Amino acid sequence: MQIGIIGSGNVGGTLGSRWAQAGHEVIFSSRNPQSPQMHDLAAKGGRTARAAPVAEAAKAEVLLLATPWEATEAALRSAGSLAGKTLIDATNPLLNLDGLTLGTTTSGGEQVAGWAQGAKIVKAFNTVGYNIMADPKFSAGNAVLFYCGDDTDAKQTVRKLTEELGFDPVDAGPLTQARTLEPFALLWISLAFRSGMGRDFAFQLLRR
Amino acid sequence: MQIGIIGSGNVGGTLGSRWAQAGHEVIFSSRNPQSPQMHDLAAKGGRTARAAPVAEAAKAEVLLLATPWEATEAALRSAGSLAGKTLIDATNPLLNLDGLTLGTTTSGGEQVAGWAQGAKIVKAFNTVGYNIMADPKFSAGNAVLFYCGDDTDAKQTVRKLTEELGFDPVDAGPLTQARTLEPFALLWISLAFRSGMGRDFAFQLLRR
Repeated sequence: MQIGIIGSGNVGGTLGSRWAQAGHEVIFSSRNPQSPQMHDLAAKGGRTARAAPVAEAAKAEVLLLATPWEATEAALRSAGSLAGKTLIDATNPLLNLDGLTLGTTTSGGEQVAGWAQGAKIVKAFNTVGYNIMADPKFSAGNAVLFYCGDDTDAKQTVRKLTEELGFDPVDAGPLTQARTLEPFALLWISLAFRSGMGRDFAFQLLRR
Repeated sequence: MQIGIIGSGNVGGTLGSRWAQAGHEVIFSSRNPQSPQMHDLAAKGGRTARAAPVAEAAKAEVLLLATPWEATEAALRSAGSLAGKTLIDATNPLLNLDGLTLGTTTSGGEQVAGWAQGAKIVKAFNTVGYNIMADPKFSAGNAVLFYCGDDTDAKQTVRKLTEELGFDPVDAGPLTQARTLEPFALLWISLAFRSGMGRDFAFQLLRR
């Protein structure tokens, strides 16, 4: 397969190098034609890898878009027409660790905090179905349960309650992380009820 | 521990029953004081479980909020002051399978689709760090890699590319699911760089 890499940073570099190793023809590109990292990737990628301007990399049949969000629009403009191309979008419109520049700017958890004045809100048990709450233990391991909130003691209480049920609890940070846990729930629900996966799945935290 | 359940549906019922079994004092409540499900839960919950009005359940030291989103504000109003309480928020402000009523109403992936007119966008490789892309295999299993998009053939191509790298690919649905995959990335990034977990973790799909 011919794969054009738009944005030769950590993500584009790692994936492009691995695909080149697998025998694909990989064309690295960058907004900076003199990018040392891009030329290094092309040199180390062997006979099936090379560096080229964005517009040339964009001629490949499959494209990986791996630009910083703020460089994404300009990169796509310099790529020319992409009609009919398969474009893998690996970007994220990150604003900071609390939000995205698009979409997620608040959450139900924060709204609840506004309604329940003074309460120590812990967002939890919103990311898996009740069937998983009934039995979070799978043969391969225990389901992860994310929680977030701004009160340390309240979070410790909730952590114990999740452990008692057999979950592997993970502290996702302050209450603003409900902005990520609520979309996570939407992902679970969509997989369960639209993608035909059914309700009986969950996620395990993998560590090395 | 004394635990008040606000909303005795599937989630409140499952968690409350399990906590009652574990010996906690559980008070089920519902917006409908005659709710058969609530009274059934209280009866089956043994000596440590009972049903009560929301305002009484809300007197417990720890509260589980497990209401349908549209009933949440009214439930909290009827609970009275919650100052100082530990409130576990298990709600999700779901609009439908494509979005949330708060927060996530669009995504970078959809923005990219607007810029790359005619391209077959597949959102992928945005939910784990490049170090996981370099090696998605953990001793306990392979990392999951979500992708979404509107073109079946393009998605099949991307699926193969993820499998070659050692990922366990999961089709998350249409491109609108970028609204869940981008916050998922934010969760990964926040755990890696703010919660002190470091970069070397991922998630495995668990099925029974």
